[in-house]
Amino acid sequence: MSDRDRQYMQRCLELAAQAAGQTAPNPMVGCIIVQGEEIVGEGFHPAAGQPHAEVFALRQAGDRARGATLYVNLEPCNHYGRTPPCSEAVVAAGLKRVVVGMVDPDPRVTGGGIARLQQAGIEVTVGVEQAACEQMNEAFVWRVTQRRPFGILKYAMTLDGRIAASTGHSAWVSSPESRRQVHSLRSQVDAVIVGGNTVRLDNPRLTCHDISDRHPLRVVMSRRLDLPLEANLWQTDIAPTLVFTEETADRDRWRKLEDQGVEVVVRSPLTPSEVSAELFNRGLSTLLWECGGTLAAAALREGLIQKLLAFIAPKLIGGPPGYSPVGDLGLLRMDQALKVERSQWQAIGPDLCWTAYLDLVSGQEGVS
Amino acid sequence: MSDRDRQYMQRCLELAAQAAGQTAPNPMVGCIIVQGEEIVGEGFHPAAGQPHAEVFALRQAGDRARGATLYVNLEPCNHYGRTPPCSEAVVAAGLKRVVVGMVDPDPRVTGGGIARLQQAGIEVTVGVEQAACEQMNEAFVWRVTQRRPFGILKYAMTLDGRIAASTGHSAWVSSPESRRQVHSLRSQVDAVIVGGNTVRLDNPRLTCHDISDRHPLRVVMSRRLDLPLEANLWQTDIAPTLVFTEETADRDRWRKLEDQGVEVVVRSPLTPSEVSAELFNRGLSTLLWECGGTLAAAALREGLIQKLLAFIAPKLIGGPPGYSPVGDLGLLRMDQALKVERSQWQAIGPDLCWTAYLDLVSGQEGVS
Repeated sequence: MSDRDRQYMQRCLELAAQAAGQTAPNPMVGCIIVQGEEIVGEGFHPAAGQPHAEVFALRQAGDRARGATLYVNLEPCNHYGRTPPCSEAVVAAGLKRVVVGMVDPDPRVTGGGIARLQQAGIEVTVGVEQAACEQMNEAFVWRVTQRRPFGILKYAMTLDGRIAASTGHSAWVSSPESRRQVHSLRSQVDAVIVGGNTVRLDNPRLTCHDISDRHPLRVVMSRRLDLPLEANLWQTDIAPTLVFTEETADRDRWRKLEDQGVEVVVRSPLTPSEVSAELFNRGLSTLLWECGGTLAAAALREGLIQKLLAFIAPKLIGGPPGYSPVGDLGLLRMDQALKVERSQWQAIGPDLCWTAYLDLVSGQEGVS
Repeated sequence: MSDRDRQYMQRCLELAAQAAGQTAPNPMVGCIIVQGEEIVGEGFHPAAGQPHAEVFALRQAGDRARGATLYVNLEPCNHYGRTPPCSEAVVAAGLKRVVVGMVDPDPRVTGGGIARLQQAGIEVTVGVEQAACEQMNEAFVWRVTQRRPFGILKYAMTLDGRIAASTGHSAWVSSPESRRQVHSLRSQVDAVIVGGNTVRLDNPRLTCHDISDRHPLRVVMSRRLDLPLEANLWQTDIAPTLVFTEETADRDRWRKLEDQGVEVVVRSPLTPSEVSAELFNRGLSTLLWECGGTLAAAALREGLIQKLLAFIAPKLIGGPPGYSPVGDLGLLRMDQALKVERSQWQAIGPDLCWTAYLDLVSGQEGVS
């Protein structure tokens, strides 16, 4: 493993990232083919149903793939899915060496692609820039190993821990820079989920605004459908909106939502787990929970949150009690608190963005 | 102003810091005398009533002060207080040059000491490492210019903005490293203030633990004196404790506190401003508010908080509503939030320590 290997793998990740938010249920994959010191082929997987990254790179390289080195951030597939196995294509193209960022965690693949290449006499190096490769596809890894979507809880709070004034007014907690960061984040996820209260109080768009033309699926959870008749989320020409409700919901409201192009799905009783499972079945990998404290707490209790993104703004709003980012977790003692790990801090304008992960191993999630 | 000047001024600040927490109502001052490249005298002001830093440095330098350069982080005094003016001592010692970190903001001094030195033909350089000098004596500057103590609000909260579980249990929000940092902070302040609820729920010591033998004055605000008969704070052999209450307080409880060596002072009605004013009159400069949200909000509303120290721990505790760091500020809209500025972040163990200042100029403090 050399510096050059690492640089080329970074290029693969750059390519892969071009399809961020568009590949679910597939991973983000980038591939390059290097002949001597020249990159003779590049590609990335643009979307499910489209060819894999290796195919694009091999096509571009043509004959120059023979004897060359292929870099790819994820182990090439070795099974017939919607496309033929990439391992066979790599063997057929006469590559001399293949450098793989990480083994594919998909049980249908794990190690099989690498074994096939080695069997064909190709030199295979595995684990180059592995941490960065795993980070990029953390949602995919979670999806295929846990059979659930990867949940991100995002909130913006003041330095005294409120997501709104006591009246519910919240425009704005965080800075324009942070809000732009959230728009960008939305372009990288498959769905954004809120509760009815957020629709009533904030009337959000939940789009990427001008960051991207491709917006995530917008999901609302509302047991009774006591939602406003007019809302930015019902403008389904901009992006699709899916409302989950229960059987007993207001039928009139239901019809009026459907008339505006909103899809309404019933799950009784309506829980975050039901929503997560349905979105998993639809092939979604990354769910961004942008909800208030009550729904956030429910999602946490049901173990649906793997990652946390807290924007903290340099201001104090005070109470009375008012709005907190996380509602009732049923924890009575401070030493029972849910720990987060791998904290990272970043300045976004005047705000701080705190990224962390719920403990994914010990099973502390699902606290109830 | 040269690099050497800056280095020598840093040495003055190091010396000055040795008396942190012990000089109120005076500033922290360090002084060195440099003859050629040799430091021939050093000193710092150890406590009010003791000689000033310049006196110690001049004593140590003796005859070698003649023709030398004197460095001091604050303008030498020019008035007869508890000690004779340092400016005269400097002139008498035959110094050639004096380097001053910052002008003394005390109206009795401002510029007078410098003018006296210049009048005597001494070359004076002002403003070396000025920002660091101002930072070190921020509380003193506030005290002499505003005629009020400098208030620091400190709290430790979870990443979801709670200072306790919904039961009030709070041991511990932050890490041992952060708590040690707080012990260290206490050694640098003049008093620590809490409300009765903190005594009842946490039974804190409010000492520096093993950081220092010198503990701050411990102050409790309790209208009714409905306080436990036994509490760590009543152990007045460790550190003095001062309880503020109202006239109508429980007389029996009052006597029992006094029997344990606690000083009880009446202010009716009892407000943070009354406490702050009394502590100012007693010569205190830096008050550390380690109280719960209700008292913190009152202190903020009365403009008594100038600096914020928020320890944020990587954990989630949830509600129901529960305990927040700041109670009712009477703010109904997010755009009315109190802004903090000059934010700085520091990792303390797994926690983040966020330091910031309330806007000291525009008068946003005193929101009610």
